[in-house]
Amino acid sequence: MPTPIDPTSLGFLLAENRNQPMHVAGLQLFEKPADAGPHFARELYEAALDTEEIAPLFRKRPSRSISSLGQWVWTDDAEFDIEHHVRHSALPEPGRIRELLELVSRLHGQMLGRERPLWEAHIIEGLADGRVAMYTKLHHSLVDGISAMKLMQSVLSTDPDRRNMPLPFDARAVRSKKVREPSARDLTSVPMDTLRSAMGLAADAGGLPAALIRTLNKGVKNEASALSFYAPKSIFNVNITGSRRFASDGWALDRLRAISKASRTTLNDVVLAMCGGAVRNYLIELNSLPDTSLVSMVPVGLKSRGSDSEAGGGGNAVGSVMVKLGTDLADPADRLAAIHASMKAGKAALESMTPNQIVAMSALGMAPSLAIPMLRLNGVVRPPFNLIISNVPGPRSTQFLNGARLTGTYPVSIPMQGMALNITCNSYAEDMCFGLTGDRRRVPHLQRLLVHLDSELTALEQAVGA
Amino acid sequence: MPTPIDPTSLGFLLAENRNQPMHVAGLQLFEKPADAGPHFARELYEAALDTEEIAPLFRKRPSRSISSLGQWVWTDDAEFDIEHHVRHSALPEPGRIRELLELVSRLHGQMLGRERPLWEAHIIEGLADGRVAMYTKLHHSLVDGISAMKLMQSVLSTDPDRRNMPLPFDARAVRSKKVREPSARDLTSVPMDTLRSAMGLAADAGGLPAALIRTLNKGVKNEASALSFYAPKSIFNVNITGSRRFASDGWALDRLRAISKASRTTLNDVVLAMCGGAVRNYLIELNSLPDTSLVSMVPVGLKSRGSDSEAGGGGNAVGSVMVKLGTDLADPADRLAAIHASMKAGKAALESMTPNQIVAMSALGMAPSLAIPMLRLNGVVRPPFNLIISNVPGPRSTQFLNGARLTGTYPVSIPMQGMALNITCNSYAEDMCFGLTGDRRRVPHLQRLLVHLDSELTALEQAVGA
Repeated sequence: MPTPIDPTSLGFLLAENRNQPMHVAGLQLFEKPADAGPHFARELYEAALDTEEIAPLFRKRPSRSISSLGQWVWTDDAEFDIEHHVRHSALPEPGRIRELLELVSRLHGQMLGRERPLWEAHIIEGLADGRVAMYTKLHHSLVDGISAMKLMQSVLSTDPDRRNMPLPFDARAVRSKKVREPSARDLTSVPMDTLRSAMGLAADAGGLPAALIRTLNKGVKNEASALSFYAPKSIFNVNITGSRRFASDGWALDRLRAISKASRTTLNDVVLAMCGGAVRNYLIELNSLPDTSLVSMVPVGLKSRGSDSEAGGGGNAVGSVMVKLGTDLADPADRLAAIHASMKAGKAALESMTPNQIVAMSALGMAPSLAIPMLRLNGVVRPPFNLIISNVPGPRSTQFLNGARLTGTYPVSIPMQGMALNITCNSYAEDMCFGLTGDRRRVPHLQRLLVHLDSELTALEQAVGA
Repeated sequence: MPTPIDPTSLGFLLAENRNQPMHVAGLQLFEKPADAGPHFARELYEAALDTEEIAPLFRKRPSRSISSLGQWVWTDDAEFDIEHHVRHSALPEPGRIRELLELVSRLHGQMLGRERPLWEAHIIEGLADGRVAMYTKLHHSLVDGISAMKLMQSVLSTDPDRRNMPLPFDARAVRSKKVREPSARDLTSVPMDTLRSAMGLAADAGGLPAALIRTLNKGVKNEASALSFYAPKSIFNVNITGSRRFASDGWALDRLRAISKASRTTLNDVVLAMCGGAVRNYLIELNSLPDTSLVSMVPVGLKSRGSDSEAGGGGNAVGSVMVKLGTDLADPADRLAAIHASMKAGKAALESMTPNQIVAMSALGMAPSLAIPMLRLNGVVRPPFNLIISNVPGPRSTQFLNGARLTGTYPVSIPMQGMALNITCNSYAEDMCFGLTGDRRRVPHLQRLLVHLDSELTALEQAVGA
């Protein structure tokens, strides 16, 4: 039964083109169980191909025809072919993380075909250390990045003895009640109906950005608010190409916590300080550091203010804070302090915002890919911000898939026109996992950022005496 | 220095979309030399990355801007990044040909990004038998399929002791004089200027199909000619999707020659008979065999008729013959005889054609992707033909790359709207190599055709007593 495509989801489909694929992904690394045979990856792949029933989210594809009166609708793929979606790949010798990231970079640069359900899962073998990787890619019209990570993690178990476990596209995963099938409404914490009525949106995608801009433009005028758009021009804020580079690594949460404790800042501040310092040193190497601080858009959770907030509804709303990363400051401790202050001011501003402003902010956080090109086209010459840094909490306990221990889980996100770099972090067990996704051409040597993140962590430890 | 894009090349760029990528490719298999270390593939890859100078064909990308007055031009890629074009891949266990074909199928379904030069070369390791594969993909706006195969083979050597050899994109390969840099004019044996003036074409791509159709429509009325379009409807003649399936294998030329000799037919007739029988049995399995024979378009070389033919120019022209494949006949020998007669009649018709008809035919052979959608849109409800079978002569002697013996060379071609299956053969040394490229969804279980090709060869041997 065809169902109409929600305007926000439709926006992601319409905003997509060769240079701006609109999918999110996750890279998970697993350590094979002690009792695994030599063909663990192949067995995982073949079990996936044998999935008896695919969850509805993974069976629907966008279509538009005379019978749908020219409207975009989701239809069930009558010719669903699991072999198209689940793939078995391998890394060339010597099978380092470098070869894995190279493969993930390539996979992430490829647009999903519209004639099929908009997802792929790649089971990847050939890591020299014996680990097996899984790269799972979903179109943003199906789920947002945070929900995608949650979905991938939701099928895992803390029980290392479980076997024959369903993967996220398996209808069993949904039926187990542990996982709720995500929908456009579930996934974004902001109720879309509220968003739409608050902004007086017509039920078509064309209307969303225009209304959004009107509200955002009001925000621009309020310099003190979390919506201030005073970011310098940077190499990240240019038009992008269709190819991607992905880099990822993890650092012990204990190290970040110690810095947080010693400096009386939050864990999130420390993550932002690592990113700020790394980006600073990266840009210095490229002789491209702006004089004033880069500004990051940072999505944050907001406590519901009940009837006080139209956006709040019954649950939690997602807002965004514009954080100055202190890239103009040479001292790591100064940067951390500046970030802490900027985040605090941004959150306070968010608290004082009108419901309409929060709704606009939520929309920006939820659908920056829709909003950014609009902002650029609306006479804001300077970028509204320079990059997006998200920090998504993940599972605190060790997770297993068919006895294979999850050793790391890294979000792969969406660079956009005017926003060539995205950093998304995912905490897991004892680590903070960083996923850096950039345009291959506009963010040269992206993998250097990993080196800088590592040295920045050490520099922060020394600076605050952790 | 930007140069205008030839209308034919531009046609391939404009005809391209997600469901119809317009690139051709070749798959080459190499046996490592006896003295090769364990990292032969990686060394090949790293040497390729170190290429000092890239040949101009492989450096140019299409662009359109105000400075080119809105015209499409080729520009040199100022930010050329060899790592984007040359890639190192591996096959998952168990590393059979099946895993290789699966990877090639996926690679072939991916559109080349317009922001870069339109080619990729993949060096693939992980075959269980130790061989190394190379999949080289070029956009049809750069070269046609035949020229692509010739280009890939041109850099090889009969000398197994040569090392440090250039790959096709290496400027050294062009400078060695053994290889001429292909251009739109060189590559198609039909002089484009002649083609254009004969058909009164305006210098834009929009004009080409319209003029072509006028000439082709004349041909349709001449039932006896090689242009007769009386093909039945078949499962291959439907709209296609963006994903591909590729299958390939080779058979000893001696076996084909023995059948040709015993039946007094040509080697090409035997190739067509293998294809006809295989397609017949494939369609029977799918319960989809049309009552009347399938018709294949078969590009053929034409001897120049000098001033007699406008298309002839000073060289050879390429024409096409519509061949009935005898898929309505149960006996392999009957099919072979029918194909022989059909091909003979088609060639005779071609000889008697007017220069304008030959030009139109040449254009159809050269650019079916442009012509077919036009034919479909011009009221010809039945397909003009059912599939395309090409047979491209390759090198007769054993070829080497850095001491690695070429064991097979398979063309990967372009399925099109209304033409979901393409078979292209390439003779090499002692083998006839078949490359079958189909739409993954519209040509189900494409690999079954390999089984049918094999049993058809045996059936032909028995039928003609070879």
